[in-house]
Amino acid sequence: MILVVTPNPAVDVTYRVSEQRIGETQRVLEVQRRPGGKGLNVGRVLAATGVPTRAVLPLGGDGGRWIAHALDDLGLVHTDVAVRGETRTTVTVVDDLAHPTMFGEPGPVLSPDEWDTVTAAVETLVDGDAAGAPPAAALVVSGSLPRDTDPAVVARWVTAARHRGVLSVVDCSGTALLTAASAGATVCKPNREELLEATGTDDERSGALRLLGLGATVVVVSRGSDGIAAHTAEHVLEVPAVPGVSGNPTGAGDAATAGLVGVLVEVLVGAGLPAPDGSVPAPDDATLLRALRSAAAHGAAAVLQPVAGAVDPADVHRFLSTPPAPAHDRTRTPA
Amino acid sequence: MILVVTPNPAVDVTYRVSEQRIGETQRVLEVQRRPGGKGLNVGRVLAATGVPTRAVLPLGGDGGRWIAHALDDLGLVHTDVAVRGETRTTVTVVDDLAHPTMFGEPGPVLSPDEWDTVTAAVETLVDGDAAGAPPAAALVVSGSLPRDTDPAVVARWVTAARHRGVLSVVDCSGTALLTAASAGATVCKPNREELLEATGTDDERSGALRLLGLGATVVVVSRGSDGIAAHTAEHVLEVPAVPGVSGNPTGAGDAATAGLVGVLVEVLVGAGLPAPDGSVPAPDDATLLRALRSAAAHGAAAVLQPVAGAVDPADVHRFLSTPPAPAHDRTRTPA
Repeated sequence: MILVVTPNPAVDVTYRVSEQRIGETQRVLEVQRRPGGKGLNVGRVLAATGVPTRAVLPLGGDGGRWIAHALDDLGLVHTDVAVRGETRTTVTVVDDLAHPTMFGEPGPVLSPDEWDTVTAAVETLVDGDAAGAPPAAALVVSGSLPRDTDPAVVARWVTAARHRGVLSVVDCSGTALLTAASAGATVCKPNREELLEATGTDDERSGALRLLGLGATVVVVSRGSDGIAAHTAEHVLEVPAVPGVSGNPTGAGDAATAGLVGVLVEVLVGAGLPAPDGSVPAPDDATLLRALRSAAAHGAAAVLQPVAGAVDPADVHRFLSTPPAPAHDRTRTPA
Repeated sequence: MILVVTPNPAVDVTYRVSEQRIGETQRVLEVQRRPGGKGLNVGRVLAATGVPTRAVLPLGGDGGRWIAHALDDLGLVHTDVAVRGETRTTVTVVDDLAHPTMFGEPGPVLSPDEWDTVTAAVETLVDGDAAGAPPAAALVVSGSLPRDTDPAVVARWVTAARHRGVLSVVDCSGTALLTAASAGATVCKPNREELLEATGTDDERSGALRLLGLGATVVVVSRGSDGIAAHTAEHVLEVPAVPGVSGNPTGAGDAATAGLVGVLVEVLVGAGLPAPDGSVPAPDDATLLRALRSAAAHGAAAVLQPVAGAVDPADVHRFLSTPPAPAHDRTRTPA
């Protein structure tokens, strides 16, 4: 079971109109509502490809209730932490003429008590429980934090996993990413912009070394159509994007995270995790390359879907079967 | 108790952004959610001015649940008819630079069975019930019908009221307005544009005579800043808008409906309604003029509020106490 925490879930609403115009009343031709937030995208892709997954998320108000029902309908197992604030909604307006316009609500502010409840849920689920639930195979934390959240919550979740020998993958931005690295996340997985912004560096390798120096085992950087890279202190392993795939890039990075964690769990947990000393062993280069190829294949499969958080497993399989382009191994001296 | 039917309620969401721009991600600075739909505006204004009121409305899905909770919080008594479709949401985007942009969802389609349940609720509430609820003092039907609704439902509600000697006020558009007139609504209350559009005429008097000819007792036409008029077969009574009031015109017409029906109920029910023959007597000119002045005062008070469906009773009182401008009595020969 892979636990996926979505700190700031959203009701993602898409309105199709005939033509976006400011200052007018616009008839909405088509409405789509989907449970959103990067972690839920990761969780849905994992579940779609047959990986046992449980979503953990704070939910509040009728938006929260809507998400809970929608996850039931999608068959994604979830543990909800009830919060007083109202779960946010995002509204994206699309037509066939202009770029989409997205309106993002600020979302609820969670109290320290509410965050403690989320952390307690993560700790319990990482451990497995008396009712027979097995310990988690991995912890994924993905997406933004709500306003005014102390980024230390992410460190607490990562630490909970590390202390139990459970691998962790964190796709957050800003201080939360630095905090996760300091807490010893197995994998920090920002996109390139998030990495540079969080580390205040101006090249990818320097940013990755910063996170590795803080304590991350591996830093995986998704580069959109430029592929995906894994940084260790010694290497940069790179896998190109699957060529010739175009469509909807929204959520492709989340599908890549799902593809990455799926392989890490398969290999590391398959090899017996935790290590005899209770630690999470660093994935070897062969495992990382397999994980990157899986990430690229999942990302490409997501691009073919009209909505985020979905892949057709047949597409993933097809992209994994294509003879891989040669991976680059750039051995570098840490700066 | 005044029954107010809202056939197509909505969750009215307002997003404030710093500047509306197409094709970008816009941070929402402030979110407001309010139960919307013209009938709910009327009901809230009636309740705010101390008139016992019950809202009747079809509600479905989480949007419907949200409205039910919000009406509880507002203290507005309501009878909900549960429907399978999801109650619609409208999103209005505002800034300080351009006109607001409104996105209106199409809303649910109700089945004939669901409409029968709404009608049964209206009939029961008009009658009063065994549990000791008194018969309704008036029936108000206000707002659009959901897609694909047979406008005959409005006629059934008006007929239910008329058969029980209960006065009815209908603020609908299109065929529903014609149908309400044919069913013998006490008052049809469109705005001028709705009247001309529904009757296919190009002047107000002709349109009003059309509705009177179909069977309405009185036609009241709200004209925004040009005041409000009551048409009978013989007269047009006109009351100007309260001068020097500016602000938010959204929902001012609904507040005017509340002001109108409040006086009609006070006078007609106070005088003993139904008449000995079981009919609803036509309001006399003095009553109509009082009702129009009340409508204008309520409309003006609503303009001073930042949101629709609200008035400060002190404002209403103040505007009612101002010496009225002379009302016009234009006696005409029916065309």
